[in-house]
Amino acid sequence: MPIAPDATLADVGEFALISELVGLFPQGEQVLVGPGDDAAVLRVRSGHVVVSTDLMVEGRHFRRDWASAEDVGHRAAAQNLSDINAMGGRATSLTVGLGAPGDLPAAWAIDFARGFADECALVGASVVGGDLTRSSEIVVAVTVLGAVTEAPVLRSGARPGDVLALCGRQGWAAGGLAVLGRGFRSPRVLVEAYRRPAPPYDAGRLAAEAGATSMIDVSDGLLAEAGHLAADSAVAIDVHAAAFDVPEPLHAVGAAVNADPVSFILGGGDDHALLATFPDVAAVPDGWSVIGAVAEGEGVTVDGAAYDGPTGWTHF
Amino acid sequence: MPIAPDATLADVGEFALISELVGLFPQGEQVLVGPGDDAAVLRVRSGHVVVSTDLMVEGRHFRRDWASAEDVGHRAAAQNLSDINAMGGRATSLTVGLGAPGDLPAAWAIDFARGFADECALVGASVVGGDLTRSSEIVVAVTVLGAVTEAPVLRSGARPGDVLALCGRQGWAAGGLAVLGRGFRSPRVLVEAYRRPAPPYDAGRLAAEAGATSMIDVSDGLLAEAGHLAADSAVAIDVHAAAFDVPEPLHAVGAAVNADPVSFILGGGDDHALLATFPDVAAVPDGWSVIGAVAEGEGVTVDGAAYDGPTGWTHF
Repeated sequence: MPIAPDATLADVGEFALISELVGLFPQGEQVLVGPGDDAAVLRVRSGHVVVSTDLMVEGRHFRRDWASAEDVGHRAAAQNLSDINAMGGRATSLTVGLGAPGDLPAAWAIDFARGFADECALVGASVVGGDLTRSSEIVVAVTVLGAVTEAPVLRSGARPGDVLALCGRQGWAAGGLAVLGRGFRSPRVLVEAYRRPAPPYDAGRLAAEAGATSMIDVSDGLLAEAGHLAADSAVAIDVHAAAFDVPEPLHAVGAAVNADPVSFILGGGDDHALLATFPDVAAVPDGWSVIGAVAEGEGVTVDGAAYDGPTGWTHF
Repeated sequence: MPIAPDATLADVGEFALISELVGLFPQGEQVLVGPGDDAAVLRVRSGHVVVSTDLMVEGRHFRRDWASAEDVGHRAAAQNLSDINAMGGRATSLTVGLGAPGDLPAAWAIDFARGFADECALVGASVVGGDLTRSSEIVVAVTVLGAVTEAPVLRSGARPGDVLALCGRQGWAAGGLAVLGRGFRSPRVLVEAYRRPAPPYDAGRLAAEAGATSMIDVSDGLLAEAGHLAADSAVAIDVHAAAFDVPEPLHAVGAAVNADPVSFILGGGDDHALLATFPDVAAVPDGWSVIGAVAEGEGVTVDGAAYDGPTGWTHF
């Protein structure tokens, strides 16, 4: 039975909606049993599975007036797929839990699922299970499983003498967020970058093959993530501010909001770029930019000095 | 630094709390990389992985005045471990996402994690990853991974002529919930059964070995779950009301709230008993009770007739 355009989740009911959503999730050949039983059953080829989980809450991680349901679906999938990318792996299967108020339009849930499925399709991953329940605000809980062929690249392997390199757009989403936060909708390219990140999904595996010594995805801010690499590897990291090509739209936003455009790059997250260390410049694969260096010591500096701008965010 | 007894999540901060929580989760030998990197890395022995996910929301799935934080942790883990049990598998690894208001006592989160870890320890499973974020109500998102040695037991394999059997306490949690809903605290054994289910964790694997043709865990109500088996297997299921030994505390609650005590057994969930079908009575393992029969047709009946009591719940 088709779902009426103005139907709410409460109108449609749990089981009818689940049936509609499951139809949006094609199942890969690794899925022996997909959604609908007590658990999904997956064929696992390699001996290692990588697993990560994330929780997104409306009003904190997304706003319905800033991004469409489909955008939120893309973002929710992207930030999880990116965690597997940052291990040097490839995502294969995801579960997604959705908590939502009964008066949420069913169309929102369906569009969300469509965006989620489309993002997963970019890496060939399947949505193999989920849960749907009532809550007072929208909550999206995603868990992603992936495979690694090389040894996984951890946060803890950076060594003094390594170079720090970045792959993917960085600062664009933060620029878009700054624009939206001030009630504007342009530069459109930045707003779109915030709404639908474009993580470099193949870069993680290639970096692992190229001998990356440590890697992390930039979700909470570049300097914050560099700080995780430095802390977990027990090294010091210096970021070279001049290494970044600041794209024209970020200059425009910086001028409009009276901020150094480089601050979006150093403090911004949400693009899900990859940050990694390599033994030397020659090992850095195509598509990566060298943006800093690893030395003995601790902490993160920018051009040798403490950075006094925003460096990321914490959740409490 | 020890966390002050009256500290809130906002006082403690994300990273200090995560560090405290991670310390509560011992890692099994299958965990190559535990919490703290972009993803956990697990060694997988068999070629199959079973995966399930659940979302619990305060006020809907639990109440802080009805169950302690530790109880909620036990329940959240139990309902997920039970899904793997219902496939005939054994849980190995879980992720847990916690969304909570900033003014939640940090002690609540810590006690929750302790209960969660203790329940996982019952089956030897490890908490390998998680996420912590702010939300306006408490939300718990769990994903569980498990291994199956036999072929997984699905909901769809029941055949006419099979017998229906049940393993584990059933109706106790519903009785406890009825008591709590009326503002009472006794019979204590039922209230405790609601607060801390005791799923028969070994029974699923043993049922698979004994040739169970279909299986499900009773989380939303016995007749509702029987309905899932019937629908997915395209068979009719008749439940024999006289087959249940009604425990004395359920008689007491039935008398107190003027309800047929069998209604708690037929309609109740939350105990995470297992419901399965077997080819014949001889195949039913010790510890299981035969409670019905499978025939050609569709739908679920009780003693051959439609049942007019509560049969379970839906989420919208």
